[in-house]
Order: sequence, then structure tokens, then C-alpha cells
Amino acid sequence: METLSQKLAFFNEIDKLKAVYRQARVRSDNNRRENSAEHSWQLGLMAFLFAADFTDEVDLLKVCHMLLIHDLVEIDAGDTFAFADAATLAAQGGKEDQAANRLFGLLPEGQAEEFLTLWQEFEANTTPEARTAKALDKVAPFLQNIANEGGSWKHHKVKKSQVLARNKGLEKTIPALWEYVLVKLDDSVARGWLEDA
Amino acid sequence: METLSQKLAFFNEIDKLKAVYRQARVRSDNNRRENSAEHSWQLGLMAFLFAADFTDEVDLLKVCHMLLIHDLVEIDAGDTFAFADAATLAAQGGKEDQAANRLFGLLPEGQAEEFLTLWQEFEANTTPEARTAKALDKVAPFLQNIANEGGSWKHHKVKKSQVLARNKGLEKTIPALWEYVLVKLDDSVARGWLEDA
Repeated sequence: METLSQKLAFFNEIDKLKAVYRQARVRSDNNRRENSAEHSWQLGLMAFLFAADFTDEVDLLKVCHMLLIHDLVEIDAGDTFAFADAATLAAQGGKEDQAANRLFGLLPEGQAEEFLTLWQEFEANTTPEARTAKALDKVAPFLQNIANEGGSWKHHKVKKSQVLARNKGLEKTIPALWEYVLVKLDDSVARGWLEDA
Repeated sequence: METLSQKLAFFNEIDKLKAVYRQARVRSDNNRRENSAEHSWQLGLMAFLFAADFTDEVDLLKVCHMLLIHDLVEIDAGDTFAFADAATLAAQGGKEDQAANRLFGLLPEGQAEEFLTLWQEFEANTTPEARTAKALDKVAPFLQNIANEGGSWKHHKVKKSQVLARNKGLEKTIPALWEYVLVKLDDSVARGWLEDA
């Protein structure tokens, strides 16, 4: 029963991810900001949706697990805008490490280690699973901004070069989406959604 | 490219699940109603959290996939309260079948079939994967109502017998959670969260 109560404590704690809001907007819901729980759902589903397009033979279950837990650290550390300045992004890293230890530490011993290691693997971005999951995490807001006629890009005056650099991981992991990003980037500049720089 | 544009159309369409609101409340976010996208995320994560407690040896990837897509039909059919009257629940079934055909029909041919079949398997509730996924789907609001001091039960004057019947599938699929439900049911009646009937 000790193990079960630890799992339930974790279940209750992660509910807070539904209160962490991102820059992306939900067009169908009065353009309100998206939260990290919904975002994580959509990423998990993207793993199945685009599985046939992955370059690497990945363990899809691992990719899915990674995507469902990857943002939990934001419960303590908050969400940082992808195109924030370098100092902000560096400070975020330390906060997220602490958060991971606290949150995954709520789990029963072996499971705490499993979830923490998986989150660290995602962050390290070196295994095929992590690189594929990271590429999905970065392209999701791209696709949302395209659907939302520029979405958060316009508001934050984001540059084409920033979006290109951020999605570079797609080139090797999900080439079909990389091709799409290249086409849509120029189109987005032409439409005035992204700065041409 | 035709295949990719079908996947992207599906990606954009499922965004609408973030605008389908359920009876459950998000305590950490001013007690607002939970949406079905967040709910689906939490269920996907529960598959990993409780995997060791499942009675059946399930294909966890399949369970996870089912849980991430199980509520998509609500984009067209809306969410129906679990304890709605029988006529309402029956009408919901037909609407959901139509919704499944439309939504999964957006996908490329083979994938449309794969997702639709998986959703039908979930609904039929006969395979080990479907029974396990269904049990998680039903126990999640239970756990949320416990954490929310009665949550949606109190508001809708739900009876203990209704909650017991609804969660009966846990007994064989996830016995540890079934034991927990039994203990917390009586406790919830004692606290006045559930009607003693």
C-alpha cells in the first residue's frame, strides 16, 4: 500500500501541469493560451501520427513515455518561452533539475529512478528516442503557429533564423516535416508572421 | 506529400479536443473544468504509472495509443457526464460512431483504419488492453474527486452504487486500485461527498 500511495501522490501532484500556461494559443477555445498538459497530450499522439516518418528505428513506447513526462518539471520551474534570452534559458536548466528530483522523487523507488533517467535522457538529446521526441516538441508549436496565422511569433517578433535553428533537429529525425518547415518558413516571412532575419 | 498533408489536417483538427470541457475540476487552476485533452494526457501517463499493477500482460504501447485517442470523438459528439441518464448515453453512442468515421477519416488510408479499429476496440471493451484502458479512464475522475473533496459528485448528487458499478472493471484489471476505491467509497459517503444509496 505504501507503493500505491506514492503513485497516487504523484498522480495528484502532476495535475498541476494543467495550470502551467505556454505561449501557444488554442484557436478553437477563444484563442486562450495552451497549457503544458494539453501540449503533452498532443505530443504523445504525434508520436503515433508520425511514427512511419521517423528516420531512426525508435522504441516508440519510450518516445511516448518521454513526451508525456517531459514538461512535468514546469510544475515547479514554470514554462520559459522558446526564444527567451540565453541567461533566462540557462537559469531554467538548474530549476528544472531540482524540479525533476522533487517530482519524480514522489514515486516508489524503482519507478522514481526510471522516470528521472528517462527525463534526463530526453534533456540530453543524444539517443534516437530523445532526438525524435525533442524534434516533435519543437515542431508542434511551429505547426500551431502556421494554423494560427503566425500565432505567438508575431506577438514576440520572432525571426525566421531562430525558428530554423530551433527545428534543425528535424532534418535528420523526421525529414518529411523538415521539408514542410522549410517551405512554410519562407511563406511565413512573406505573410509577415516571421521577421526576415 | 499527400500523406503528410492528411496527417497535418488531423493534427490541426484534434486541437479542438482542448475546447471540450468535462465535469471534473482542476483544483490547481481556480477549480475550472478540465478539458478532454488534459484528461487524455493524464490517462496516457497513468498507463506508465500503474503498468506494474495490471493483472493482464498488456501491450502497453497499444493501451497508451488507445488512451490518447479515446476521447477524440468528443470533438463532434461532446462530452457526456458519466452518470447521465440511459437515453442520453445511448444517443451519445451513435454520435460518437459518426465522429470516429469523420475524424479518423482525415488520416492517410492505412492509418485511418488503424486508429478507427483501435478506438472501436476500446469501445468494445473486450480485449485486455481495452479493459485496462477503460478501467483507467473510469478511475481517473474517481481519484480526482477524492483529491477535490468530492468534486463533481457533490454537485450532481452521485450515489455510491453508481460509482461502484462504474469502477467494477478495476477488480480484475487493476486490483490494487480496486481495493483503494472500496476503502475510499465508504469514506466518501461518511464525508457526505457521495449519497449512501
